[in-house]
Amino acid sequence: MEYQHELSLKVRDYECDLQGIVNNANYQHYLEHARHEFLLSRGISFAELHAKGIDAVVSSITMRFKTPLRSGDEFVIKSRFVHDRFKYIFYQDIFRKSDMKVALKGVVDTVCVVNGELSEVDIL
Amino acid sequence: MEYQHELSLKVRDYECDLQGIVNNANYQHYLEHARHEFLLSRGISFAELHAKGIDAVVSSITMRFKTPLRSGDEFVIKSRFVHDRFKYIFYQDIFRKSDMKVALKGVVDTVCVVNGELSEVDIL
Amino acid sequence: MEYQHELSLKVRDYECDLQGIVNNANYQHYLEHARHEFLLSRGISFAELHAKGIDAVVSSITMRFKTPLRSGDEFVIKSRFVHDRFKYIFYQDIFRKSDMKVALKGVVDTVCVVNGELSEVDIL
Amino acid sequence: MEYQHELSLKVRDYECDLQGIVNNANYQHYLEHARHEFLLSRGISFAELHAKGIDAVVSSITMRFKTPLRSGDEFVIKSRFVHDRFKYIFYQDIFRKSDMKVALKGVVDTVCVVNGELSEVDIL
Repeated sequence: MEYQHELSLKVRDYECDLQGIVNNANYQHYLEHARHEFLLSRGISFAELHAKGIDAVVSSITMRFKTPLRSGDEFVIKSRFVHDRFKYIFYQDIFRKSDMKVALKGVVDTVCVVNGELSEVDIL
Repeated sequence: MEYQHELSLKVRDYECDLQGIVNNANYQHYLEHARHEFLLSRGISFAELHAKGIDAVVSSITMRFKTPLRSGDEFVIKSRFVHDRFKYIFYQDIFRKSDMKVALKGVVDTVCVVNGELSEVDIL
Repeated sequence: MEYQHELSLKVRDYECDLQGIVNNANYQHYLEHARHEFLLSRGISFAELHAKGIDAVVSSITMRFKTPLRSGDEFVIKSRFVHDRFKYIFYQDIFRKSDMKVALKGVVDTVCVVNGELSEVDIL
Repeated sequence: MEYQHELSLKVRDYECDLQGIVNNANYQHYLEHARHEFLLSRGISFAELHAKGIDAVVSSITMRFKTPLRSGDEFVIKSRFVHDRFKYIFYQDIFRKSDMKVALKGVVDTVCVVNGELSEVDIL
């Protein structure tokens, strides 16, 4: 299936841990930032949603780590999503730019919570 | 199955994002810190392993987010693992202390890499 | 002058960067968390202040880094403050527990912003 | 005095805290990343320096926070440095792009440590 959005970033040294590779939690940051930029590209701001009482939240996430990113690496996050009644399921893969090797494969389920209740709100 | 290790922590305000709840990536930090304390309780230091050329790395992670933690919440991370030839599989669940509600259920596969090669090294 | 509050913490491995020492930005996290616990010990919640429209914000910070903290280190953050009309000035020092060597000396000026305006609100 | 380096970035939502503004510690990340990119633009890699046993470390930092950055803000970090015998002193200012208002003014003293000893090494 085809990706619907791409975001290019570069590793920042503070994202690397004592093993000299990007700390795992930062991949989650990368994926989140890519989703929010994806939303923005369609005119939707995560911060504005929150201000309106709609919170898009992650209900589950699966990440498979393939190739560790390191200081100086440039990478691209490619994303697409499918929508069912209550969920947006994002498929997000990260590729290292130097050789386009897969760094990470992720699947992220998100739901919308409106005033504390799971909602069918269609935001995308 | 029974947990083998417990670690109690408290939400730090900087871990919360603009939605007022703990940012998802921080749960990964919580799980990592709990695993490293678990290792330490058995005499194994993640930093020393690295210094010896053995890198314990996460190969995949699945997290299901059940109840968001907020500013001031205390919580406990309960962990157990199973070991097969190449993998340590950690089952890690986070409970909010005020009512012991499940905040997160996680499964983390870790492998050992020695000099860049996947290894059978038995560290636990 | 005497400290008014103490908070003991332990380095988490993800706070260390590729140099194997705690990344500088994390000391700011430590100081912030200690200030918020200091406030809580006097019955004031940073999150509740925000919910009431009062934002305690840092206007300036100075940190002198003396001894780097490393994986496994336990440390204590000792804090005191003085109050003038618009500012709370926090003096916060971090000591490594193993030898009580100074890890960091910090001075943090905070002000209160109410509805976007600098305020004289007396919160402590 | 004139700036010698500029780096443009954009706020990532996970960098904002429960006040809805960029958490203070992230400005330190921004400054660090800008310094490392500055070094790279002159052919020096922070990670490679570390691998060679030379650690550039921050000995003190002063930041004055002027205008908080928020979700969606683009900004530019402008840097210059002066060198005396043992220190590189970086002057780093952050401007919000929409109106070029000053977000932060920073002064960062860095020293080089070689095998644990303060060194005169001239890296720039």
